[in-house]
Amino acid sequence: MKLASIKDGTRDGKLVVVSKDITRYCAADNIAPTMQYALDNWDRVSGDLEVLYRDVEHQSVPCERFHESEAHSPLPRAYQWADGSAYINHVELVRKARNAEVPDSFYQDPLMYQGGSDTFLGPRDNIPLGDPAWGCDMEGEVAVITGDVPMGTSAEDAASQIKLVMLVNDVSLRGLIPGELAKGFGFFQSKPSSAFSPVAVTPDELGDAWQDSLIHLPLLVDYNRQPFGRAEAGVDATFNLAQLVAHAAKTRNLGAGTIVGSGTVSNKGADGGPGKPVADGGAGYSCIAEIRMIETIQDGSAKTPFMKAGDTVKIEMKDKDGHSIFGAIKQEVVAV
Amino acid sequence: MKLASIKDGTRDGKLVVVSKDITRYCAADNIAPTMQYALDNWDRVSGDLEVLYRDVEHQSVPCERFHESEAHSPLPRAYQWADGSAYINHVELVRKARNAEVPDSFYQDPLMYQGGSDTFLGPRDNIPLGDPAWGCDMEGEVAVITGDVPMGTSAEDAASQIKLVMLVNDVSLRGLIPGELAKGFGFFQSKPSSAFSPVAVTPDELGDAWQDSLIHLPLLVDYNRQPFGRAEAGVDATFNLAQLVAHAAKTRNLGAGTIVGSGTVSNKGADGGPGKPVADGGAGYSCIAEIRMIETIQDGSAKTPFMKAGDTVKIEMKDKDGHSIFGAIKQEVVAV
Repeated sequence: MKLASIKDGTRDGKLVVVSKDITRYCAADNIAPTMQYALDNWDRVSGDLEVLYRDVEHQSVPCERFHESEAHSPLPRAYQWADGSAYINHVELVRKARNAEVPDSFYQDPLMYQGGSDTFLGPRDNIPLGDPAWGCDMEGEVAVITGDVPMGTSAEDAASQIKLVMLVNDVSLRGLIPGELAKGFGFFQSKPSSAFSPVAVTPDELGDAWQDSLIHLPLLVDYNRQPFGRAEAGVDATFNLAQLVAHAAKTRNLGAGTIVGSGTVSNKGADGGPGKPVADGGAGYSCIAEIRMIETIQDGSAKTPFMKAGDTVKIEMKDKDGHSIFGAIKQEVVAV
Repeated sequence: MKLASIKDGTRDGKLVVVSKDITRYCAADNIAPTMQYALDNWDRVSGDLEVLYRDVEHQSVPCERFHESEAHSPLPRAYQWADGSAYINHVELVRKARNAEVPDSFYQDPLMYQGGSDTFLGPRDNIPLGDPAWGCDMEGEVAVITGDVPMGTSAEDAASQIKLVMLVNDVSLRGLIPGELAKGFGFFQSKPSSAFSPVAVTPDELGDAWQDSLIHLPLLVDYNRQPFGRAEAGVDATFNLAQLVAHAAKTRNLGAGTIVGSGTVSNKGADGGPGKPVADGGAGYSCIAEIRMIETIQDGSAKTPFMKAGDTVKIEMKDKDGHSIFGAIKQEVVAV
């Protein structure tokens, strides 16, 4: 099934069940008023939500027109946003651009940071930028929402705790990252509010494309209305999302509604080296930093600038028939 | 006023107003069912909660006995837990123990990490420990809960967004910290669930002890029922809590119910050097790591072990008349 949170003036929005083609919705008020409520009570309410989803599909309940622009992120705010870095190619490029090695441990022990989750942006909300020198970038990723995951859960068991799947734009301020990482406590100011796709879907909606807790489809990233990234989310992932959930749960319980992200989706080039731009027949990039790293490796310096006011990003994923699965994240940077 | 969340089998508990002497409470159901609801609607409900607090004080409403052991953390789960490191003495000791300098920037630019906030421990809950080699430690701190703080808010304006004050035990797994920090993404597994004091109080409850967004009282930390820390929370703070809130809000809005922590309360010795143990007339330590660092500096190696199953910690703060302000965090480590 497909779920969304419609903006209704409240902090958490109104939970709705969305048709498979994401054109219609029916409010789920009488089952679960909010997405967090549904996740808190998943075992009790998910069956009823599935029934309503079938009714929406059969048009046997009154539906309203679903406008992606009226949707919040599926969880407008969450109790946890933990972002991994499953596509090590991205990390390899970062290191290569500064002539550093990737430690062997990175291939066994996932990178993960704790993100801010109290004020997500909506999928069509502007990205507020205080200073162009902050180096605003998008990061196109896949994310999952979990149920309750007990401390010490294995990756195998964690897979069954993945309740919903969505896309994310993990907005990053590249100009602030080196200073923050040098301080040793990880990202904080350099990771402002993320935005998620208008719709979150249960893994079964993905059919064969959902295997081994990864989506085997390309992530479509457009930058200023031009194709920028077409990386395959099922390729070059050193860790899958269940492994990332298990990593997060190693030393404590995870609460229902925990969001775990894949990190920037990133493919190697066909020759195993840096990937080519989409215009040159490559899979392109899910963030600007990556093309800048490749420019640095190839030409000695980066030439593609980071995002400034007026720049736009669109992040989407389509099924094999070309239909949008999650709706599109579409954001414009605005100076504040 | 004083507020608490009573355990009632729900994830968020039941908001109650607690008497000043923390012996009685009255449910606030008809004003705000949960602490998060109160914070989401603070301007509308805080006046009514204050009226109820006065009624509880005058015993003009029916009250029940307040047992600290029945309280959740004031926010059993939160949308944000951002922990600073205001007491640079703690950082200086860490660095000194490994013969490293503290960068000048640390005195102008606060250290802060994003903590997990989805499953806090209650103030009397056990601390589950999967492996003694993880090096379990307490960290006694002061924390505040904010209202909505817009991006770019100054420290002066942030002070007025501090709605509640409480204590925290920021449980840390010292054995996992070096590996995680070396990976560059900050703490994750090394910072399991924190616990907060049974009661959160409005700043006015602290009277003269609340000045410049700091509490000018000693933080009482007992370890295995012996005095371990008596550090003055108003002394040696390089940053106050309003400055930490403003730091957190530099690049994005903070949502109501954001918790910001002070970092481990830590005082220098009377001679400006490392502080002495309480038993030797010093202010002692709010975490075990600190005494281990001093042992390392003085003797070449640490001798005080980290916490193991059966070890207990108590964290409390008393007003000038000796009355507990927030109730006591009292936890025992248990093997799981």
